[in-house]
Amino acid sequence: MSVHIASTTAPVNIATLKYWGKRDTALNLPTNSSISVTLAQEDLRTLTSAATSASFERDTLWLNGKEESLDNKRTQDCLQDLRDLRRALEEQDKSLEPLSQWKLHIASENNFPTAAGLASSAAGFAALVVAIAKLYQLPQDMSALSKVARKGSGSACRSLFGGFVAWEMGEQADGSDSQAVQVLPLDKWPEMKAAILVVSDAKKDTSSTSGMQRTVHTSDLFKERVDTVVPRRFNEMKEAIVQRDFPRFAELTMRDSNSFHATCLDSYPPIFYLNDTSRKIIRLVDGINAFYNETIVAYTFDAGPNAVLYYEEKNEQKLFAFLYHLLSGVDGWKSKYGDEQLKAFSDAFSEASEKVEFYLDDELYKGISRVILTRAGPGPQDTTECLIDETSGLPKAL
Amino acid sequence: MSVHIASTTAPVNIATLKYWGKRDTALNLPTNSSISVTLAQEDLRTLTSAATSASFERDTLWLNGKEESLDNKRTQDCLQDLRDLRRALEEQDKSLEPLSQWKLHIASENNFPTAAGLASSAAGFAALVVAIAKLYQLPQDMSALSKVARKGSGSACRSLFGGFVAWEMGEQADGSDSQAVQVLPLDKWPEMKAAILVVSDAKKDTSSTSGMQRTVHTSDLFKERVDTVVPRRFNEMKEAIVQRDFPRFAELTMRDSNSFHATCLDSYPPIFYLNDTSRKIIRLVDGINAFYNETIVAYTFDAGPNAVLYYEEKNEQKLFAFLYHLLSGVDGWKSKYGDEQLKAFSDAFSEASEKVEFYLDDELYKGISRVILTRAGPGPQDTTECLIDETSGLPKAL
Repeated sequence: MSVHIASTTAPVNIATLKYWGKRDTALNLPTNSSISVTLAQEDLRTLTSAATSASFERDTLWLNGKEESLDNKRTQDCLQDLRDLRRALEEQDKSLEPLSQWKLHIASENNFPTAAGLASSAAGFAALVVAIAKLYQLPQDMSALSKVARKGSGSACRSLFGGFVAWEMGEQADGSDSQAVQVLPLDKWPEMKAAILVVSDAKKDTSSTSGMQRTVHTSDLFKERVDTVVPRRFNEMKEAIVQRDFPRFAELTMRDSNSFHATCLDSYPPIFYLNDTSRKIIRLVDGINAFYNETIVAYTFDAGPNAVLYYEEKNEQKLFAFLYHLLSGVDGWKSKYGDEQLKAFSDAFSEASEKVEFYLDDELYKGISRVILTRAGPGPQDTTECLIDETSGLPKAL
Repeated sequence: MSVHIASTTAPVNIATLKYWGKRDTALNLPTNSSISVTLAQEDLRTLTSAATSASFERDTLWLNGKEESLDNKRTQDCLQDLRDLRRALEEQDKSLEPLSQWKLHIASENNFPTAAGLASSAAGFAALVVAIAKLYQLPQDMSALSKVARKGSGSACRSLFGGFVAWEMGEQADGSDSQAVQVLPLDKWPEMKAAILVVSDAKKDTSSTSGMQRTVHTSDLFKERVDTVVPRRFNEMKEAIVQRDFPRFAELTMRDSNSFHATCLDSYPPIFYLNDTSRKIIRLVDGINAFYNETIVAYTFDAGPNAVLYYEEKNEQKLFAFLYHLLSGVDGWKSKYGDEQLKAFSDAFSEASEKVEFYLDDELYKGISRVILTRAGPGPQDTTECLIDETSGLPKAL
């Protein structure tokens, strides 16, 4: 049995200009363009191996070692698009093996808990598409492949690039111009870091898929957001990124997170993703920026209570003076920093503390289950890791 | 010493179409028209006595028995307007005593704790203006006086009427057409009741005065609210009230509360008045309406976490089946209902409970300090109570 295999990793991305609302739910075409930062894969990534063989009997997917159904339209659309692209190649070059006709075995795993609400579907669909594109030796560039990933999960299209990425909403009804493009490569602004505060929450609110359509159909303020506010902000944020103007980038990021959650609240019935802990984090970020009289940190919240804080490496000690003081009891520090460095954060707080006039909530840690300390990162990466056994065509772990 | 005295009571009103934003901060001219329900004074009212005498040496105010400064522009503007109106009378009729030239003693008290965040300034300024207008025997009608009360506190203008009241924003720069009018008198829809859930909150957010101007100046979505959303809703809500269409009135009320809080969240930095308990109450109201497959209750939230629930008397048992079940441990029930009635609420819940599929949060009561069970009520009332001693011209309590 001859088994072809290809593997890739793909990153998580966290939007700084939010995607919320579809103009076409089947094709995942958005009501507005969006922007994101791709995060480092040492902390958050999906690894996917895709295999195909004439002998495989059916398309099969294993997620984190467990077989999962492929029987959903979004995944089927992605597979179909990829097979169509492969078929076009095979028709041009008859010497190619007919991989487009064979079944696929796909194995995928995350290096972080799916349950944490960390945009795992974006990394997942990005890895799926890139692994199969590699398996099929497709010549399409990342923007072209991003249109395939977009059909799986809208925000997945942005995970096909590293650094700073825009998803241009496009205008065409078939989605042919709704794709991701690079705004700024990672190596032009590698100092961008991210601290994710994973917020404990008893009960997840509305799913983002149904939530965004409720907003589209019921929020009176939504149209103003997508028609006026976001188009202006999209250009401003791209400019701020290209100029590496952190304070501007930060303000736009925070304003857009607020705007997105405002349209959720304006939906009927209202949708809530921020909880009291999220609100405390917003107040803390406001307080820290006011304390330093400089915008050194930005918050953003996706469709859940977790905060992602963006900051530049040079301001890490200023930020962590407060974060480590309030959250030292929470998991996530020691895997990144040694005792000496952590002590430096504590010392920085001690030094600052007598000048602090804003309210520091000593109970903030109670609402936070862990911190993930990471940074901006590259796009999908080749890997020597492989989750599928070349001989059996089955997941290695099984 | 001859002391002239007049007393009145004035009610609290709770907006169902929110006032948020001033186009003129000195005159308290709003960026949009608003609508409110006036609440019964047996539960929430200000009692104010105003006295004047040639012998008084200075304008003096006592609030709840304690002398308070009158040295603020808003109160001074009200007093000036009232004296101007009296002076015009005196000029027309020289036989009138020159009350407009004498100093005022004003004593005022609330029958509810000011700290509860229950729009006490609206009742306070309404009572102040009506008491002095009565003392001065002014011929102006309530709409004319509402323009004076408006200068003290915007929403106070709506407390000059009972039942269902609109504050027409007006167009004139001098505020001469920004006044309260009756939409529907109390006796046309006396079945309207209100349950106020007083939510405990550690820390008050931004004051409404500074909060609304932050929204005006920083929210990208605010203009859409005041230019498009509210003008349409103002007409729809007046229509729903006149037709006594509770489900329509309720939906508009809930949507407008959401819209107002959405523009707060869209402000920069964002303003939060709803907390996790407020959110639970919103979910509970959604759940109750869905359970009965009929909109029997509406929530609305002012610039704070307290919920005001509006409902019609005929649906009280349906509503209280849930409210009393969840909040029976909270103060406020026994002063209104006997054991038998409370048992009927419990029984109604027992009967309903097996069909309940939505989430009932057994810990809701932890976030609520008391309930105030009240109803729609009349406007300012004459009273035989008087807080000022006729002989001394000083507060009786002193």
